[in-house]
Amino acid sequence: MNNFNFYSPTYFAFGKDREQDVGALVKRFGGTKVLIHYGGGSVVRSGLMERVKASLDGAGIDHVSLGGVKPNPRSGLVYEGIDLARSEGVDFILAVGGGSTIDSSKAIAAGAVYDGDFWDFYSGKPIEKALPVGTVLTIAAAGSEGSPDSVITNEHGMFKRGASGDAIRPRFSVLNPALTQTLPPYQTACGITDILAHLYERYLTNTKEVEVTDRMIEALMLTMIHEGPRVIENPDNYEARANIMWAGMMAHNNSCGVGRSQDWNSHNIEHELSALYDCAHGAGLAVTMPAVFSYVLDHDVMRFAQVAVRVWGCAMDFNHPEATARAGIEALRRFLTDLGMPRNFYELGAHEADIPKLVDALCNGDGRPGHITGFVTLNQEDCENIYRMML
Amino acid sequence: MNNFNFYSPTYFAFGKDREQDVGALVKRFGGTKVLIHYGGGSVVRSGLMERVKASLDGAGIDHVSLGGVKPNPRSGLVYEGIDLARSEGVDFILAVGGGSTIDSSKAIAAGAVYDGDFWDFYSGKPIEKALPVGTVLTIAAAGSEGSPDSVITNEHGMFKRGASGDAIRPRFSVLNPALTQTLPPYQTACGITDILAHLYERYLTNTKEVEVTDRMIEALMLTMIHEGPRVIENPDNYEARANIMWAGMMAHNNSCGVGRSQDWNSHNIEHELSALYDCAHGAGLAVTMPAVFSYVLDHDVMRFAQVAVRVWGCAMDFNHPEATARAGIEALRRFLTDLGMPRNFYELGAHEADIPKLVDALCNGDGRPGHITGFVTLNQEDCENIYRMML
Repeated sequence: MNNFNFYSPTYFAFGKDREQDVGALVKRFGGTKVLIHYGGGSVVRSGLMERVKASLDGAGIDHVSLGGVKPNPRSGLVYEGIDLARSEGVDFILAVGGGSTIDSSKAIAAGAVYDGDFWDFYSGKPIEKALPVGTVLTIAAAGSEGSPDSVITNEHGMFKRGASGDAIRPRFSVLNPALTQTLPPYQTACGITDILAHLYERYLTNTKEVEVTDRMIEALMLTMIHEGPRVIENPDNYEARANIMWAGMMAHNNSCGVGRSQDWNSHNIEHELSALYDCAHGAGLAVTMPAVFSYVLDHDVMRFAQVAVRVWGCAMDFNHPEATARAGIEALRRFLTDLGMPRNFYELGAHEADIPKLVDALCNGDGRPGHITGFVTLNQEDCENIYRMML
Repeated sequence: MNNFNFYSPTYFAFGKDREQDVGALVKRFGGTKVLIHYGGGSVVRSGLMERVKASLDGAGIDHVSLGGVKPNPRSGLVYEGIDLARSEGVDFILAVGGGSTIDSSKAIAAGAVYDGDFWDFYSGKPIEKALPVGTVLTIAAAGSEGSPDSVITNEHGMFKRGASGDAIRPRFSVLNPALTQTLPPYQTACGITDILAHLYERYLTNTKEVEVTDRMIEALMLTMIHEGPRVIENPDNYEARANIMWAGMMAHNNSCGVGRSQDWNSHNIEHELSALYDCAHGAGLAVTMPAVFSYVLDHDVMRFAQVAVRVWGCAMDFNHPEATARAGIEALRRFLTDLGMPRNFYELGAHEADIPKLVDALCNGDGRPGHITGFVTLNQEDCENIYRMML
């Protein structure tokens, strides 16, 4: 196991009706004037926004609002949020929504107290300070509610980049599984896929003898495999929603990813798809993961065999471990298809003709050195091959 | 899943040589004058104490020391530590040792800023403030390095009681697996047993549909089963030590125990043994757990069958689930025996004649209502039967 630091100080308030505690939580973490950041009208229509505002009012906390966050959140709205936070003298950013809203809130929080362009942080500058952020999560997917990460799409060129720093880690996150019961099945399935991807990106490691984190990742994968189909079948299943919601946080606060190299090639390859086509991140991952895993399988057959046996219940073929490894990838593919996820470029709305552009943006965009590196290093030819496997 | 709050803000510095960072960590968390609290001479003889002091000196942090913590840490030394902390104007308590040292440090931290008797906190008074605590862990066992808990033995009557509060949760913990390589096999095995017990105490729940935490607990149990025999066979196996050390923390910071009722009957039944005979807590648990589990098996046969199948690799007997459930308990018993743990009262150094006294202390001591409650409620007759099963 490699040396590491682990620090996850977010306070999680989990369960039914917990959004009623938002006012007290903002107060506990020092907020006096809040910018409520959110996406579309669903949080308003559902009555959630009203409950959140009532809780803030009850705690005597002033607030302003900024809606309009879209999936694959854009830099334009971040600039707007930064201006609003400054002009209103806001000292706390409250995200009410999913990963996109939380990521946009983190960007505003960092940008509001920075003299330069917030995009500097998404070009590699460390985030040293930010306004405190809290969240009320409405979809189990991104894990942003317990992570120091944020991904934003730059509208000048439509490319996605990430930033990270303890300063933008949420001070608290309200996780009420009931809030996710109204999600359409497709969005629920995208969230499940994203969580599985966060687990695979950590599972695919070149660090040896990491039994504890292997087992923890497998535990969370098994949870998704058990609970995923149950919520698709019955969206009102609170217990299944609750198990998925805690798994989604645990999958990405990195307690199961410490001390080991990680992959993240699938995420990088996918990010170009959702940046260009504005498809759901989870949907893009469903198409990307099986292609990437099949392409790199030879790099460590036994690792793919291990997940096949321990997670997907495949029988170990001791004479042909690579057959077991492939069976595990096929089991993942079937699982995602059964959830209703797209299987290929066509179903995702992507186009073969764009492959050279995707490869170029992926490998050369934003100062990248002509390749990407994770579990394996993939050059431009590899990336083109992988995109072609998704056709 | 039940509603819950989860808050684990401890900063973990994990890996080789990380004790070199102690000075910087104390500074980060606001300490200027440290009480170094430790046990016997082994941390001095090994050179660890010297390295810790050098790191503090390097960061310009003043320090005083108090050694002498024994397993099953005593109230007497806590009073001494409180007096020393006050007279020296200490503002940070640094535990260098195992669970006993950390628990004693937490008690000093709470007592030093409290006007009354620190034992009030071990009699139910909430801990509202304490000096900050940091730890350098030398044995993977208690999980106290990431928990808000402390257990102290009151020398006036020799009974153990616990206290809990976020204020005594360590601000940082240094986890260097190499520091555990010099432990005698018996102590290593006691630690492994304690970690397994922390997992079973959470696994035995009356809350339904808690797949995510079930799976996480199982993951950590599987890690102990894989790595335990490897460190007993080869104490220098750093990788196995590292996996056990992270599992020990994760087993007890409660991320795998949230949202579900827990048991803790085995711990309570054991505490009377180690309080009376001063045996190692882990050794007492090795004798206690199989007896308790066999006694309460009928309360939820399928739960015991689940752990038997998923963790111990038992084949499910669909016609006789209780046979599978029993096979899992037998597998645990064999595992503990193979680790070198005692099997019964005799091997533990306990005496049949003391059973009435043990039962009375357990069920009636310190204001208890004549029974203990966890996965099941156990009255005095039940507790006597369980102690007799250990003969």
